[in-house]
Formats: sequence, C-alpha cells, structure tokens
Amino acid sequence: MGVIALTTDFGWGSAYVAQMKGVLLSATPDCRIVDISHSIKPQDVQETALLLRGTAFSLPLGTVHLVVVDPGVGTDRRAIAIKAKGMFFVGPDNGVLGDIAALEGAEVVHLNKREFFREPLSTTFHGRDIFAPVAAELAGGLELTDVGTVVTDPHPGLLGTPSRNDTTFIGQVLGPDSFGNLMTNLPGNSIDQTKPVSLNDMDIPWVQTYAEAQKGELVVLLGSDGFAEIAVRDGSALEKLGPSVVGAGIECPMVESAHVD
Amino acid sequence: MGVIALTTDFGWGSAYVAQMKGVLLSATPDCRIVDISHSIKPQDVQETALLLRGTAFSLPLGTVHLVVVDPGVGTDRRAIAIKAKGMFFVGPDNGVLGDIAALEGAEVVHLNKREFFREPLSTTFHGRDIFAPVAAELAGGLELTDVGTVVTDPHPGLLGTPSRNDTTFIGQVLGPDSFGNLMTNLPGNSIDQTKPVSLNDMDIPWVQTYAEAQKGELVVLLGSDGFAEIAVRDGSALEKLGPSVVGAGIECPMVESAHVD
Amino acid sequence: MGVIALTTDFGWGSAYVAQMKGVLLSATPDCRIVDISHSIKPQDVQETALLLRGTAFSLPLGTVHLVVVDPGVGTDRRAIAIKAKGMFFVGPDNGVLGDIAALEGAEVVHLNKREFFREPLSTTFHGRDIFAPVAAELAGGLELTDVGTVVTDPHPGLLGTPSRNDTTFIGQVLGPDSFGNLMTNLPGNSIDQTKPVSLNDMDIPWVQTYAEAQKGELVVLLGSDGFAEIAVRDGSALEKLGPSVVGAGIECPMVESAHVD
Repeated sequence: MGVIALTTDFGWGSAYVAQMKGVLLSATPDCRIVDISHSIKPQDVQETALLLRGTAFSLPLGTVHLVVVDPGVGTDRRAIAIKAKGMFFVGPDNGVLGDIAALEGAEVVHLNKREFFREPLSTTFHGRDIFAPVAAELAGGLELTDVGTVVTDPHPGLLGTPSRNDTTFIGQVLGPDSFGNLMTNLPGNSIDQTKPVSLNDMDIPWVQTYAEAQKGELVVLLGSDGFAEIAVRDGSALEKLGPSVVGAGIECPMVESAHVD
Repeated sequence: MGVIALTTDFGWGSAYVAQMKGVLLSATPDCRIVDISHSIKPQDVQETALLLRGTAFSLPLGTVHLVVVDPGVGTDRRAIAIKAKGMFFVGPDNGVLGDIAALEGAEVVHLNKREFFREPLSTTFHGRDIFAPVAAELAGGLELTDVGTVVTDPHPGLLGTPSRNDTTFIGQVLGPDSFGNLMTNLPGNSIDQTKPVSLNDMDIPWVQTYAEAQKGELVVLLGSDGFAEIAVRDGSALEKLGPSVVGAGIECPMVESAHVD
Repeated sequence: MGVIALTTDFGWGSAYVAQMKGVLLSATPDCRIVDISHSIKPQDVQETALLLRGTAFSLPLGTVHLVVVDPGVGTDRRAIAIKAKGMFFVGPDNGVLGDIAALEGAEVVHLNKREFFREPLSTTFHGRDIFAPVAAELAGGLELTDVGTVVTDPHPGLLGTPSRNDTTFIGQVLGPDSFGNLMTNLPGNSIDQTKPVSLNDMDIPWVQTYAEAQKGELVVLLGSDGFAEIAVRDGSALEKLGPSVVGAGIECPMVESAHVD
C-alpha cells in the first residue's frame, strides 16, 4: 500500500484535485493519499520547491510525491520522474523538482511513454493525464526506468546555495512558513551560532527556542528542517520586515570546519 | 471498501465536518473518505452544482457523493439520494443535485425512512443526522430503493443549457475555478472552434493551450471537463472581467452537426 | 486500525503537518488520519478548546486526538496525554486540553519518557518529536500509563462554566463557527427556551430552526452540540454584532430543575 503525496496550486476544494484522486484511486485502490498542499500560490514554482525541501523526505520510504505546479503545461517543457534517497517524485521539469534532481544519487527520467498516459491526453491538465497515472504506476511497484527514459539535464534547482568567502556564508531569505517565520538556505550545522547574522543591515541574535526571545524581538534560530530561520516571538517576521525581505541576502559567520555540500 | 466523497460549505477545519466523518467512520470503518471541498461559499447552491459537474464522475465507480449545502435545513425541503451512471449522490433536494437528477437513467429517492437516521434527529444538521448515515449505508452496499421512496419531481438543475438558433449557441458564464478561469455551459464538441466567441461585446479567440496566448490575453479554450472556458494567460479572467461577468451570456457559432444533449 | 485526529494551527498546506504525518505513518502504517483542522488562528488556545468541544467525542471510540497549538514550545510547559470517555488526547498542557482533563473520570499523564520521543528532540517542534510519536503508540495499543506518569494538576480549562443566581444563568459567547454563528457555554437542556436570552441589552428570541426566523433576524437556538447558539438567518451573527461580542456575557432564564454539571 504505497503512499502518494500531493502538492499542487489547484486550491483546496478544486475539482482538479478530485479528478487527480479519481485517477489514483481507480488505478491503485489501496494507495494512501496524503494532501501536502493545494494552496501553493498559482504557478509559484519557488514556493513549491521550498515546501518540498521540508516535506520530500518526511513521509515513509517509497512515498511518491505528485507535484503539479505547472505554468508551462501544453508547451514543450518535459514531464519527469525522479528517484532520490528512496523516494519518488513526479511532475513538470520546470524547476520545482530541480533541487531534488541535484541530490547525490538522484535518477531522473523523461516521461515519454504514451502507454502510461490517460487518454484522451489533454493539453491543459497533465496533472490528471500524465503525472497522476505515472504516480499510480510507481506506487504500484514499477521501477523508475519502466516509465521513462533517463535524462541528465533536468532544470536547475530554485533554492540556491549560499556563497562563501573565507569566514562568511552569504545566503538568501527563501520565503515564509505559515507562521511568518522566514526560511533561508543557510545550513545550520555550518554556521557559527554564537555570532549574530546580518540581514538588511540589522544584526540578529541566535536563540535556541522562541521562549528565549523577548516578545516582538527578531531572532534567528535553527529551524526544524536544519536551516537557519528568522522569527519574531509571538509574531510574524514576514509582517515585521515586509514582503520585500524575501530574496534578501543574509550573512553568517561560518564555523571553522564548515563546508557546503 | 467504498469511497465517500464530501462536498460542503462548512469550511475546512469545521467541527461539522469532523462530526459527519465520525458518523461515517463509526458506521463503515473501512470506507475511504475523499474531501472534495469544504470551501463552497456558505449556502451557494450554484457553486456546488458547478463543482459537482467537474467531480461527479471522476472518482471510482460506486463512489457515494455526500453533498451538504443546505440553506433550507429544517424546512420541508426533501432529503434525496440519486443513482446515476454508477455513482450515488446524497443531499438536500434544493437544486445542488438537480443537474445530476436530470441525467439519462438517473433514479431519485426521497429519504423518508427514519430507521436510517441518527437519533436524536436535529433540525439544524441533517448532514450529520440524515445524509451521512444514509451515505454510509449506500457505501456499505444497500440499494438506492432500500433507503427511500422513488420520486419523479426532483428540484430542477441550476446550470442551465445553452439556447440556440440556426447558427449560434447562447450559453452562460457559470463561475470561476480556483485560477479565475471562467467555466461555461457551452459543450465544446458542439462549437465551431475556428471562430471567436462573443462575450460582453468582445470577440474572444480560441486557443488549444494557454501557451498559444499572449501574456494577459483573453482567450477561450476547451476545459478539461469538455466545456468552453474563458481564460487569461498567466492571469485570472475573473479579475480581468470583474465578478459581474458571472451569469453573462456568451455566444458561439455551432458546428454543422451540433446538438445539445 | 486506530484513528488519529489532527487539530493544529500550522495552516493547511504546511510542511509541519506533512512532517507529523510522516511520523504517524512510519510508526503505524495502517492508522487512519483525520484532519480536523489546521486553520486554528496561530497560537489561539481558546479557539482550539472550543473546536475540541465539538469534535472530541464525535469520532469512533478509541480515537487519538493529536492537538498541537503550542505557543510555549521549548519552555517548561508540560507535554500531556489524557484518556477520557474512551478517547485519547495528546498535546501541550497549556489549557487546550483543560476542559477535557476536567471531565469526570479523565486520567492525565505527563509525557516524560524520553524513549518514546523522536531523536534528535528539537526545541521548536514537539508536535513532530513528542506528540506525534506518542499518539502513534496510543493508536497502536499502548495504555495511557505506559507513555507517562499520572498528574493531578493539569492546566485549567478555557471555556468557563456559566454562573447562576436563583433564576438565571450568566454565560459567555465563546466564539464563532464557520458560518458566523456564535457558540456559548450555556447548556441547552438547562435553559428555559420559552423566554428570550439577553445579550448586550438585546432580547433575543428562541427558534427551533433557522427557517422560523426572518431573514436577517437575530435568534438563539440549540446548536447541534447541545449548547445555546446565537444566529442570523441567511447571515452571520458575528458580522452583525462585531468581533467584540466574543467574550460578552449572555443571560438566560433557567428551567426549574436546571443544574450545571
């Protein structure tokens, strides 16, 4: 009984989600469906990639992630599937899966075998007609190379990696979580957590828990996914700093032995 | 293991949804529950009927649709169940199920057998006390006529059918999907897709995919449910045309052999 | 196959929900997960307690409620589990579970057995690291006292009980449901439903169903959870009275034999 996890921008309550579930349940009646999100902002590929960073390897080994945020549907963007660290991913080759495809050991295939597609194949809804049928096959036990042809040039990832000089990482604010905490691409285990980080000319101190901060104070802490995170106690860092903070650079002293994988 | 699909206006996170699920899971522990939507606008029967058009026949054969958008609860509006094209539908007889009831071969029963209701029967929550218990019985294998008495005068449907003259269909804009695309009641297979449609004195050209349109351009295309759909590339037709477009008439040349089922 | 019911303030579509489900599904692959709500307002413990009043005993006997609204995570607030009336509850000891803990026969334990926690134990996400693993153990068959040590001083409940004099109950408006109906802590079976209730110097009449009211009229009726509820026919009592009505006192004549349990 495989797990199929859905991440889309269709909206909670969309007919399109129900149509994809119909395909999944008809093909694999015993699969378990987990709705990760249907409230990605329409066509926001970076938000999708960031959400996947937090969810991709959280579900049971063998989970098939069905990811449908697909502004280019009907163009010649490829449909792909990936196997990485024991998980499967199915979706468009537009960057939403690029950071997964770049992981060590990841295999990527182009979904070019029409016998796995739903007929008639629409030009507007590959979530239902390509990605869901292939996800069901993978959940049902097919191998990655059964459903497509290996490719070596997937779309690059969208989350970036920090640059560095001798003593400092320079990363980016990637986006907020649902509490308004700001997630970054700075890996916590490489950062010197005794020294403040620098964001928009502010020095922001580290804490271990929200409770160490004063109410309303801006702090940085190690998020539950292992990356540095900017937060406000009992508040929203996104609100305090404004939406333009997304994409801003953030500087951190590194620990002596640090390296970026 | 039957599938029970929920469509309500209770809101995601409502206690009322949990209470209905409690009834379903207590009666049929092995049923599979699919949450189609809980974000129908409160009491919006037309939105419900439109969503059902896209979902009714998407789930596995035998699915029981439990539809609770019920402004008249506690009045003498009937509770009904329908079997149509191998699917079941349970809900109030207020029009939300009228388009389903009008399908060829559909059977409709009045849910008038108190032995299937939850006791004590409330006057404010038939979703929990009538519709959910009956849905569980149908998912568990009862026949339609086991749970009620046949009726032949269900509430008419709400989606309308296009009118026509010798050369033209005149349909309506029914409402937006979650991307702001505008769904209509114009069946794509009867329309001449080489000629623009006319909406609010604008001529709108056909495309096969979003990608053929210019950014921001208003186009018409065949939606994934087989009806004509007004869209804006990388945008929202609803926003571009304003909410008053819902209900507006839309004219299409018909193909020579066209007919409305 | 145990039922695990989730109530959180993480937001629908949050990575944190997926991470908790990963813990649950990895530990108990056959459990059935019911998402009660992920749209509690961030850190709103009273809203959580009110939602639980309506859902706690609605699901099948033996259900494990996993409740994660936890502003004090990382402080010395305790993690607790409760068994009450055949149901289990797991969450922080900050009041969200206080009304449950106060029920007759309820048993409460302090979750102080590290062998049940996920390692490494974070300071910011006990939902994933403490509450979910313990919920999975309870769904899998462990007894309450297997997972913690009995405590007798849980945080008090947040919903209050009406005060009374010789002839009148004085209760409070606790908050809205998703339709804007206002829920109270006035138990319907103790109130004289032939006489109006008094709220903000208005006399509000009782009805049995919404249909008895005029459109736009303010009425009181017995909610489906057994408590008095202020409603507006085809409208929202919350909108009509404004958000400041939450917390307001409400007076009801009591029936002769009335008592508050």
